[in-house]
Amino acid sequence: MRVGVLTGGGDCPGLNAVIRAIVRKGIPEYGFSFLGFRDGWRGPLDGLTRPLDIPAVRGLLPRGGTILGSSRTNPFAIEDGVDRIRTNLMNFGVEALIAIGGEDTLGVAAKLHEVGVNVVGVPKTIDNDLSGTDYTFGFDTAVNIAMEAIDRLHTTAESHHRALIVEVMGRHAGWIALHSGMAAGANAILIPEVRFDIAQVCKWVESRFRLDYAPIIVVAEGARPKDGDEVLLTGEKDAFGHVRLGGIGDYLAREIEARTGKEARTTVLGHVQRGGTPTAFDRWLATRFGLHAIDAVHQGTWGMMTALRGTDIVTVPLLEATKEPKLVDPALYAEAEVFFG
Amino acid sequence: MRVGVLTGGGDCPGLNAVIRAIVRKGIPEYGFSFLGFRDGWRGPLDGLTRPLDIPAVRGLLPRGGTILGSSRTNPFAIEDGVDRIRTNLMNFGVEALIAIGGEDTLGVAAKLHEVGVNVVGVPKTIDNDLSGTDYTFGFDTAVNIAMEAIDRLHTTAESHHRALIVEVMGRHAGWIALHSGMAAGANAILIPEVRFDIAQVCKWVESRFRLDYAPIIVVAEGARPKDGDEVLLTGEKDAFGHVRLGGIGDYLAREIEARTGKEARTTVLGHVQRGGTPTAFDRWLATRFGLHAIDAVHQGTWGMMTALRGTDIVTVPLLEATKEPKLVDPALYAEAEVFFG
Amino acid sequence: MRVGVLTGGGDCPGLNAVIRAIVRKGIPEYGFSFLGFRDGWRGPLDGLTRPLDIPAVRGLLPRGGTILGSSRTNPFAIEDGVDRIRTNLMNFGVEALIAIGGEDTLGVAAKLHEVGVNVVGVPKTIDNDLSGTDYTFGFDTAVNIAMEAIDRLHTTAESHHRALIVEVMGRHAGWIALHSGMAAGANAILIPEVRFDIAQVCKWVESRFRLDYAPIIVVAEGARPKDGDEVLLTGEKDAFGHVRLGGIGDYLAREIEARTGKEARTTVLGHVQRGGTPTAFDRWLATRFGLHAIDAVHQGTWGMMTALRGTDIVTVPLLEATKEPKLVDPALYAEAEVFFG
Amino acid sequence: MRVGVLTGGGDCPGLNAVIRAIVRKGIPEYGFSFLGFRDGWRGPLDGLTRPLDIPAVRGLLPRGGTILGSSRTNPFAIEDGVDRIRTNLMNFGVEALIAIGGEDTLGVAAKLHEVGVNVVGVPKTIDNDLSGTDYTFGFDTAVNIAMEAIDRLHTTAESHHRALIVEVMGRHAGWIALHSGMAAGANAILIPEVRFDIAQVCKWVESRFRLDYAPIIVVAEGARPKDGDEVLLTGEKDAFGHVRLGGIGDYLAREIEARTGKEARTTVLGHVQRGGTPTAFDRWLATRFGLHAIDAVHQGTWGMMTALRGTDIVTVPLLEATKEPKLVDPALYAEAEVFFG
Repeated sequence: MRVGVLTGGGDCPGLNAVIRAIVRKGIPEYGFSFLGFRDGWRGPLDGLTRPLDIPAVRGLLPRGGTILGSSRTNPFAIEDGVDRIRTNLMNFGVEALIAIGGEDTLGVAAKLHEVGVNVVGVPKTIDNDLSGTDYTFGFDTAVNIAMEAIDRLHTTAESHHRALIVEVMGRHAGWIALHSGMAAGANAILIPEVRFDIAQVCKWVESRFRLDYAPIIVVAEGARPKDGDEVLLTGEKDAFGHVRLGGIGDYLAREIEARTGKEARTTVLGHVQRGGTPTAFDRWLATRFGLHAIDAVHQGTWGMMTALRGTDIVTVPLLEATKEPKLVDPALYAEAEVFFG
Repeated sequence: MRVGVLTGGGDCPGLNAVIRAIVRKGIPEYGFSFLGFRDGWRGPLDGLTRPLDIPAVRGLLPRGGTILGSSRTNPFAIEDGVDRIRTNLMNFGVEALIAIGGEDTLGVAAKLHEVGVNVVGVPKTIDNDLSGTDYTFGFDTAVNIAMEAIDRLHTTAESHHRALIVEVMGRHAGWIALHSGMAAGANAILIPEVRFDIAQVCKWVESRFRLDYAPIIVVAEGARPKDGDEVLLTGEKDAFGHVRLGGIGDYLAREIEARTGKEARTTVLGHVQRGGTPTAFDRWLATRFGLHAIDAVHQGTWGMMTALRGTDIVTVPLLEATKEPKLVDPALYAEAEVFFG
Repeated sequence: MRVGVLTGGGDCPGLNAVIRAIVRKGIPEYGFSFLGFRDGWRGPLDGLTRPLDIPAVRGLLPRGGTILGSSRTNPFAIEDGVDRIRTNLMNFGVEALIAIGGEDTLGVAAKLHEVGVNVVGVPKTIDNDLSGTDYTFGFDTAVNIAMEAIDRLHTTAESHHRALIVEVMGRHAGWIALHSGMAAGANAILIPEVRFDIAQVCKWVESRFRLDYAPIIVVAEGARPKDGDEVLLTGEKDAFGHVRLGGIGDYLAREIEARTGKEARTTVLGHVQRGGTPTAFDRWLATRFGLHAIDAVHQGTWGMMTALRGTDIVTVPLLEATKEPKLVDPALYAEAEVFFG
Repeated sequence: MRVGVLTGGGDCPGLNAVIRAIVRKGIPEYGFSFLGFRDGWRGPLDGLTRPLDIPAVRGLLPRGGTILGSSRTNPFAIEDGVDRIRTNLMNFGVEALIAIGGEDTLGVAAKLHEVGVNVVGVPKTIDNDLSGTDYTFGFDTAVNIAMEAIDRLHTTAESHHRALIVEVMGRHAGWIALHSGMAAGANAILIPEVRFDIAQVCKWVESRFRLDYAPIIVVAEGARPKDGDEVLLTGEKDAFGHVRLGGIGDYLAREIEARTGKEARTTVLGHVQRGGTPTAFDRWLATRFGLHAIDAVHQGTWGMMTALRGTDIVTVPLLEATKEPKLVDPALYAEAEVFFG
């Protein structure tokens, strides 16, 4: 059997490790051959391919990014998209497809399964907000990168009198902020799931200064203040039509300076969080997802994706992952609040 | 209520994070006061203490080791040991005890619980071989350290023609070898659970050399060859009464050189694996274990220990953790074997 | 003899290593005693002290920040400032002073030397822009932190189609940008010493995109465009009196998006660059500066500071360090330009 | 002009960075073309080549190892070796050669220069023991790796009561031991240049234990005890013809245990020190060596090698590097001794 493989959506450490594991097991164990599709769904749509054999995956385990490239192309938003994919799969002799991606990529996979394409999914999101699995690979790497940055701020915070703000990824879910903030001892963690009260944030800042330590605040990029405060961020236009610079981290710095009279400085980690070599946990998870995905292909359990439950890899319906995002549980956020201020 | 805290057994990144979380929640939330007992069970046995309040735990989160010190003292092996502990707890006004440790430390805790001492346990072992919990803290740190070392060997392995051996911790269980070897792409992983065939190891070595890559072998310190081959290791005396130097890694290097005619070099990571700052996963797990341990004290659920199940922290009977070690499952080892050779 | 020690100016990895070396050599070798002055020149000005003996410096070598605290207080800007310092030194029995700091701190030291105070200086600036020494400690650490961040962006850059901008420290000198950009393979490096042409930057961006790689631009926070383009940055007010958010990195992102039509994302490393544990080079340099500073005190060579020349530690007049900043040599910048675009 | 490039001797982080810089400058700036010779001097000897253009060097900057491979082949030890090299260079149209390597590789280069081959050298040794240059690339990386390992041991050392020994590279020169031991706060540093007194080492160990800290000893693999103590190490045969396991680190552990009655544990870093991605300093140095080597080719200054003097790259005669090794200066070792015990 010839199996196609593609990666879709945002970058994530571990993608290459999944691809490697699929190929390293699929060829000797099941006698499969593989075809890489490039740039997410654009690959099967436009017939963009890349050979995928054992030499092609050598050295991939520690490498960030994806050798297959990625895109956010949605074949269901394109006329004849699904038919073109079917035709291309047939022309290339590809009988099964492994789609590695997040909500959007797996959503397409679920729909293709419904119309009869043999698909197995591998869940991927650096934000850890996919339902149906305990964790997704890439998340542990992002959390460690953010934690190391916050660790470095602590020594500065002990010697100086500035509020230090770290803006991390997370538009809709605060997992990276929560885990890295808790792992690195942040004095406040602001997440999209809970609108923050800027006055309360300033109280935490001031209580920390009274202990003669500089406060460290971790904020997810999607966190927003409680009241409809006119927060104009990067790319948005103000009342005079001027494009604004700066994100929520810059907003916090400005507000804290204005309200407490203390200096504040912002670190914006940006894409640094989604690049580079994966941690051991992410390589382990990605490798096992790859091994179990090719087992699922061998067993013909279509329409499923791999998932982590405790220390076991299981398969769950693709639909389970794509129905609603996994947000931070208020009880878990309450555990972190013990350390605020 | 006054709560005693102690740490026993081998060193492990995350011990200080547990202590910090216990104190940071226990004082403001439950109004507890704390007393640190020094050097494991020797502390309550001999009345060795250390103050434990909020200033005492400042800055502890990222620090390896344990501020309370540790030992392998077993009060049940000492005459009047249990009575002396009871008396000291009473004299210090300590009504409950949190014992953080491995099989031995928690075994003592379980027995003390049986004789009426109010004990809650927190499981700890860098080897990850305690039953009842998905993971213990410290393990993820050790695996990442070993993985980074193996990563570095890969570039050397590509340029030269030597077999490279990495000896990692694990006397009875091969978890560190398995996870680090799989995360870093080892060409063979040798664990205590499965006796290895030195001839097979040499075949993997040679098949790797034929691809023009140098083989990398990860071996747990407790791994042993199949046949009763005369493997004399560090500290053991040979037939002439001479004390031997070198461990299983040195044995492998010698055998591979003799059998394949290729050079072999050994890295022995030793205590490097159990020192230094914990990873984000281990700080997260240790912090949550601390928070839930103090909740258990508050609720009076004695004789239990905290445990990780998926993403949840639960409590399980102390006896569950101490009945038998958690060894590597053959099915899991088989997943790794896909990548051997 | 009793020797006072103080640290002034911005935070810098290696400060604690200097303090440790001074004390570890000064006490057993020369029989000196020490007194720590807190918060830079505010310490001797207001009589703020901290004991400084061998137990006080234990464990300091790997720790970022400074146990003595710091400030930007200038005693020459305060009425009677110099007299208060003299009086306090006399009252504390302090006969010599080691001042560890940058241009400002050492400038004060030079003036105090002129009025008869026994001062030895140790140069410190994370920006590496002090004359008279090949390098200052802290710089190597900052460069490695920035390099690791850029390394991580490269894998993302290979998988996606975005321009990635990294804003690093350097208000007046571009050393960190130059070294980290060159070490990590940036496609453009923008420094304060050379005004950049935004059109040229966009050409480099586009030529990189044509190779199907995403461009990475490293910009020092003090870099500015050639023409007097209206660049309003953090804290500055626009024509309508609105405070702006965002720095030069945000400006570049906005301009590149507007001029090339490609997405751009910015990472602002901020204080992360000046925190945390020093690299081996910085610990080595800081330790040797400390050892040679206390030798200078022993020899009574006042008015001098330690300096690195090749692999030797020498002493040079304090005035040499403070006369003018060490800027990036155009010939060196030209070496880096080979790799632009 | 067509320029050949080869790398010889042991592995070293930064080799690829040199190759990249040579090509990235040589092609656009001077219009050169390049040919890679594989496996050190075996390449020009046997006509083993590899294409070397701009796409071939993409992504090389952070990669350890060498894409050209290496060997210890000496053409002067082979009959007709020099003639075969001359003939091959002529056949391939190669008019100049850049040889990147250590004492042996550069020694061959110097002799080839004497017989009229156009050679430029780039010095390389992880051990930092080449004369004529302040530092060689790879050394800073090795020192940081060793330092990080020792850092991790410190937390363990605080919690337990064991002597911890770290065996690092250095057969003839103790630079790695000296720099890493000094940067990480070792309690003793043993180097090949100074024979150690095992009784004195045990005194330092015991004085450290009295402070309730575990001692950490850094030992270069080539360090040896003072007296002709019967130290049989790896590969050597004892009086009964048995091959010994273990190196000088194991010897120290055994002696310390026997003489002090305390447990001792050894870490052998091995090839981990010479693998993986280079530090910023090493990438900077390697890149500049590459740029200046191709300038030297352009200027036709044959028989020279690049060298670091302070912050400048200069060229010095190849003979200067190969006449005698650069050993640790006793004055420098004395600086480190301040911290022993």
